[in-house]
Amino acid sequence: MNIAIIGLGNIGSYLYKYLLSNKKILEKKNNCLPNVIYVSAKNKKRKRNIKISKNKWLANYLDATKLKKIDIIIELIGGAEGPAKKLVFNALKNKKHVVTANKALIAKYGDKLSKIAEENNVNLEFEAAVCGGVPVIRALKEGLIANKINRVYGIFNGTSNYILSSMDKENKNFKEVLIKAKKLGYAEKNPKSDLNGEDVASKLKILSSLCFNSFINNNIFVEGINFIDKFDIDNANNLGFKIKLLGVSEIIDNKIYQRVHPTLIKKTSYIASIDGVLNAVIVDGKPIGQNVIQGEGAGPEATTSALVSDISSILRGNIKFPFSISNNERKKLLYKEISDRSYSAYLRFDVVDKPGVLSNITNIFSKNKVSIKRLIQNPSKSKKFASIIIITHTSKDRFLNKVLNQIEKKTYIIKRPKLIRIGIN
Amino acid sequence: MNIAIIGLGNIGSYLYKYLLSNKKILEKKNNCLPNVIYVSAKNKKRKRNIKISKNKWLANYLDATKLKKIDIIIELIGGAEGPAKKLVFNALKNKKHVVTANKALIAKYGDKLSKIAEENNVNLEFEAAVCGGVPVIRALKEGLIANKINRVYGIFNGTSNYILSSMDKENKNFKEVLIKAKKLGYAEKNPKSDLNGEDVASKLKILSSLCFNSFINNNIFVEGINFIDKFDIDNANNLGFKIKLLGVSEIIDNKIYQRVHPTLIKKTSYIASIDGVLNAVIVDGKPIGQNVIQGEGAGPEATTSALVSDISSILRGNIKFPFSISNNERKKLLYKEISDRSYSAYLRFDVVDKPGVLSNITNIFSKNKVSIKRLIQNPSKSKKFASIIIITHTSKDRFLNKVLNQIEKKTYIIKRPKLIRIGIN
Repeated sequence: MNIAIIGLGNIGSYLYKYLLSNKKILEKKNNCLPNVIYVSAKNKKRKRNIKISKNKWLANYLDATKLKKIDIIIELIGGAEGPAKKLVFNALKNKKHVVTANKALIAKYGDKLSKIAEENNVNLEFEAAVCGGVPVIRALKEGLIANKINRVYGIFNGTSNYILSSMDKENKNFKEVLIKAKKLGYAEKNPKSDLNGEDVASKLKILSSLCFNSFINNNIFVEGINFIDKFDIDNANNLGFKIKLLGVSEIIDNKIYQRVHPTLIKKTSYIASIDGVLNAVIVDGKPIGQNVIQGEGAGPEATTSALVSDISSILRGNIKFPFSISNNERKKLLYKEISDRSYSAYLRFDVVDKPGVLSNITNIFSKNKVSIKRLIQNPSKSKKFASIIIITHTSKDRFLNKVLNQIEKKTYIIKRPKLIRIGIN
Repeated sequence: MNIAIIGLGNIGSYLYKYLLSNKKILEKKNNCLPNVIYVSAKNKKRKRNIKISKNKWLANYLDATKLKKIDIIIELIGGAEGPAKKLVFNALKNKKHVVTANKALIAKYGDKLSKIAEENNVNLEFEAAVCGGVPVIRALKEGLIANKINRVYGIFNGTSNYILSSMDKENKNFKEVLIKAKKLGYAEKNPKSDLNGEDVASKLKILSSLCFNSFINNNIFVEGINFIDKFDIDNANNLGFKIKLLGVSEIIDNKIYQRVHPTLIKKTSYIASIDGVLNAVIVDGKPIGQNVIQGEGAGPEATTSALVSDISSILRGNIKFPFSISNNERKKLLYKEISDRSYSAYLRFDVVDKPGVLSNITNIFSKNKVSIKRLIQNPSKSKKFASIIIITHTSKDRFLNKVLNQIEKKTYIIKRPKLIRIGIN
């Protein structure tokens, strides 16, 4: 089968080399030869450490969607709009198989794209879009096909997980760790979508629709790790927790709850042990019980592993619905806002240390019927200020936020208060 | 597609019910209806809580291999020989797809069977034979297809893992825990192959050949958990370790080492956190790095999840080589004995507490060039006996065993000495 790779950054170049040097073993395993006959990239002259003969370069990247001899298009441009969108829509319409690592595109246009793929009887594969080398998409579509899944959650972003676990281990603050992460290549120059939860949100939306046989649901609560500081990490530690950025999607009473937020997780739990740039996906279903898949979440190596599994599936002629089930059968799920979800929480109030403050704060908790499980007051060195850490009993998110908002307005508050949810229940 | 289920114990009955009540969703996902048209079992009258009409029962189980309208045979008889062997060989010869949960059969006859399956262009699927609900076979054949794997290891037996982790947590000895495990259904009436490592060995052999694209290699060192007692568990704990029964297969200098034995694992490592009846498979490869899959290793629910993923693959017409690659391409690997492998080890000597013993023991270590990293001598309450625990530096297995054998012959030894290997390097 003839392949065109569109986009030759770190990942595209690594994939190109991989396919060249592993042609034979892939042919042996799939009974079909993968042949890269065309490439295209915005910057043709960039250093890539690969030799590509001139006649392999497409004049225009969109030619890949028109040339008859191309069977599979690998989209590695990135971004939900612009050239990536144009390429994938046109490719599927012209009956080309598409393999993509583009989570933003699939999270936004996955429903439309899968409809076109199904109508044209071609594959749209996106293993590389979710948690890089963790073969979770294929596991959901094939290995775990028998299961009715009611929850999927985990650590889906290596950059933010590296930052949180480094703050924990190395006694450094957010800024210091972010600088180190950039140096090591664990954070991009502009790590915005990694830190604000958007990257996790895209992956979670894709996982949800695969797990629940539903259309992509855009109702999702998203909060990043930008506001977490070393003091929170230390407090969590003292209380027996780690802070992790989790994506959680679950079905409760036939409605979907989707949320991305930093979460206090018991130190002894499996998910607390996932450190550094690792990703982990946990699936709860019937009859299987719980299943965990863990691995490298990003980088050219892990992403190539995912891309090649998609390419191999196409080489074997394993035509499948992009979201595991025909679009006619996918459901539109009713959703619930996170405000209806209940959990215990960690709240932090930095206050002026004067009489009456503590009683005012606890009074606001009591009025809103949020009951306090544990309270720790730490004075600052100057003794003028204090940090009050409160662990609540289980309470609805909306009441926790009400408490937060009411206390935030008080004149004794010197910093924006914090709410970090505990556990995943 | 028409299915015959042969063997209706706990698993067969659960699968029968599952396929009946999930026919529609499986058809939607695979574009093909799975239809159970025949069953067979040794004891027709056993209580099963399922209603099977008389005309579904085969007169003779081998008829399943002859009847033209049967497409897929599910073998749930068990055992490497006898009826299971007859059924699967005949089924493949007669161009029936076979799905089996029979690790003993595949570990013993997998090479022959896969040859017949390939010649007849039918599937031989055995996801359920290795670690139940952990979808590792499919992950190796598809999700991780791009990777050159150099090591696979993990916890592959729920019974022994339950016993080891219960001894650790509940302050009970081996016998007490085994009785409890039987009560809870975590150990069979005759748990011999679970405790002596044979069950893990079968699974490891199958995983090795899939990971390394090789024929099944029977050269494997196997040691079970029968000789582990509460005192060893406590010693391990005090030294910062847990004891786990591991299967490890690795390629070193193009040769395969396969071994199954109790192993001291650092408490902080991922594998030490796998408790109870869970299974975990860890794969090291390139380009992926490390990948982990974890889940329920046994029971009708987990096994059915695996069986249905195999059945679905066949429904979708996803014909694959049983061991991922054609038999013509599978290699015969050279192997190395475990005696050439090096690691540090835990040794325990129960001795008469008299002068000269310690110096004699350390002298034997020194003569065999096994260097001691740590030594702890604990007197018994009567002060007549003592336990000497020694942690060695890295040393070849054959030298560790030489030390063990030489000391075992001494008259001051009152119990068979123990050697438990540390880590997986």
